Amino acid sequence: MAEKQDRLKKCFREFSEETRELYLNQSIPYLEGPPAPLEFYRDWIGPNKPCIIRNAFNHWPALSRWSPEYLREKLGSKVISVAVTPNGYADAVTDGRFMMPEERSMTFCSLMDVMEGKVEKHGVHYVQKQCSNLTEELPELTADIEADIPWMSQALGRSPDAVNFWLGEASAVTSLHKDHYENLYCVISGEKTFILLPPTDRPFIPYGLYQPAVYRQTADGDFEVVEQADAKKVPWIPLDPLAPDLVRYGSYSSARPVLCRVSAGEMLYLPSLWFHHVRQTHGCTAVNFWYDMDYDIKYSYYQLLDSLSGLTVS
Amino acid sequence: MAEKQDRLKKCFREFSEETRELYLNQSIPYLEGPPAPLEFYRDWIGPNKPCIIRNAFNHWPALSRWSPEYLREKLGSKVISVAVTPNGYADAVTDGRFMMPEERSMTFCSLMDVMEGKVEKHGVHYVQKQCSNLTEELPELTADIEADIPWMSQALGRSPDAVNFWLGEASAVTSLHKDHYENLYCVISGEKTFILLPPTDRPFIPYGLYQPAVYRQTADGDFEVVEQADAKKVPWIPLDPLAPDLVRYGSYSSARPVLCRVSAGEMLYLPSLWFHHVRQTHGCTAVNFWYDMDYDIKYSYYQLLDSLSGLTVS
Repeated sequence: MAEKQDRLKKCFREFSEETRELYLNQSIPYLEGPPAPLEFYRDWIGPNKPCIIRNAFNHWPALSRWSPEYLREKLGSKVISVAVTPNGYADAVTDGRFMMPEERSMTFCSLMDVMEGKVEKHGVHYVQKQCSNLTEELPELTADIEADIPWMSQALGRSPDAVNFWLGEASAVTSLHKDHYENLYCVISGEKTFILLPPTDRPFIPYGLYQPAVYRQTADGDFEVVEQADAKKVPWIPLDPLAPDLVRYGSYSSARPVLCRVSAGEMLYLPSLWFHHVRQTHGCTAVNFWYDMDYDIKYSYYQLLDSLSGLTVS
Repeated sequence: MAEKQDRLKKCFREFSEETRELYLNQSIPYLEGPPAPLEFYRDWIGPNKPCIIRNAFNHWPALSRWSPEYLREKLGSKVISVAVTPNGYADAVTDGRFMMPEERSMTFCSLMDVMEGKVEKHGVHYVQKQCSNLTEELPELTADIEADIPWMSQALGRSPDAVNFWLGEASAVTSLHKDHYENLYCVISGEKTFILLPPTDRPFIPYGLYQPAVYRQTADGDFEVVEQADAKKVPWIPLDPLAPDLVRYGSYSSARPVLCRVSAGEMLYLPSLWFHHVRQTHGCTAVNFWYDMDYDIKYSYYQLLDSLSGLTVS
């Protein structure tokens, strides 16, 4: 049994290495302008390869307009949903639970007061709602961007499923996970830092099942943990790529995370099923477009890899 | 060990079933005209799905011109290379050897005499040389077709690596195998019958290593087998999908071969790495275009599946 498992693990390591040698880059390549739809499909979406596209949304008014003052003026008394946590980790495994943030409704101005240090604050704030919050909740901002990325919509033959607005503190972190979307991530101001791992590194990434719980801030400003005993357990990655516990998750040492920084005016193409961990500079604003992925042979192969990864767990 | 192997086999079966349910068709779908390059990439090449395209080369003079008389007139005294075997099986496993045909040089007229039963013949004849024999050896015919398939060249961003001409007897068979090419197979006259298996059925398809040998016709018309003792063994599929030996290759019962017939005027898109077995009506003429495949994530995943398939061999 152990021998067979070792052979399986060896297959996974060779597969991951050969994949990187065959078609992945050591770092994330740049395109210097918006691509043609066919070329983008053939060179990036089809092969499931990330890239950073420059000069892709220079014409968006958002790039020059989205100062804190402008956003305050446009959105001032608007009530928005903000994720608040004691430590910056929303939707992440903490102390053996899948910890979800307090979803706090607050006016945009009061969020900006927190962001700009004008009020005493408790906890870390992050506008990170992924329900197409830009088009659904912030119509005041839609004139500053475009409703889709035309060459991407043409390449995929569909419109985006969601357009999301992101604004948060430096200590707000998005824990390692993957999405079943083709993702175009546009940084408007500040900088985002991504840690990326290809789907082919799945065998080295630990998953567990965790009981959900929610943070709730008490009157004195501290956070309590509200167990969600009736909720279904959530499969999530307990590993923190910023401080991987290689004693517990030894196989992660075979993974090859790639770090990339995306600056204001740049767009990251984050392919479907790539694992990603995200940080940002304080007050960074970003907009991302989620296009549904194609459930084709690549997805099937990934599902197989996912099942097989379970077989190497001791 | 046996338990682990059973779990691996179960993963493969589920994978193959889910793949078919997710994105493959029960039969090969038809397109009624030439597709646009982007759509063809997105809907067929990217997902690695076969289809039959009608009305894709109606304008080729070959369709009306390529009668036996015309070909005799154009090519009459031209010497061409013909694969000759006693049984129709060239490049196939027979009696534990990888049997290759006698590569016979003969004039086109003498081949046509054989095809038309005008001379006593021994063995089965097939023009099946896959070295771009149409452009390299038969320039007399190139004006009757096109040098490439424009929408395919545009979709892939490259020209074909090879354009091959096929002409053979009804009993000439191409044994089950796969190619690392995107293949457009155009039937000019007659009909070809393909048995197709997706790359995801790899775990159910047996491979072995076989010593090569070549057929040679003796003066009395019989064939002898010339061993190639110094040649490297060839990995090949010993299974005949027309009469699969399920006692010996039990896992093939989990495979789901799809049969498709391609008529004169139709073009089969046979995606890279699909297993195929081919027969034809007597005297069927065909031209196929081999475009090099992209060595991307799909290829990597296939290589993993290939390695893992080895682990389930008892």
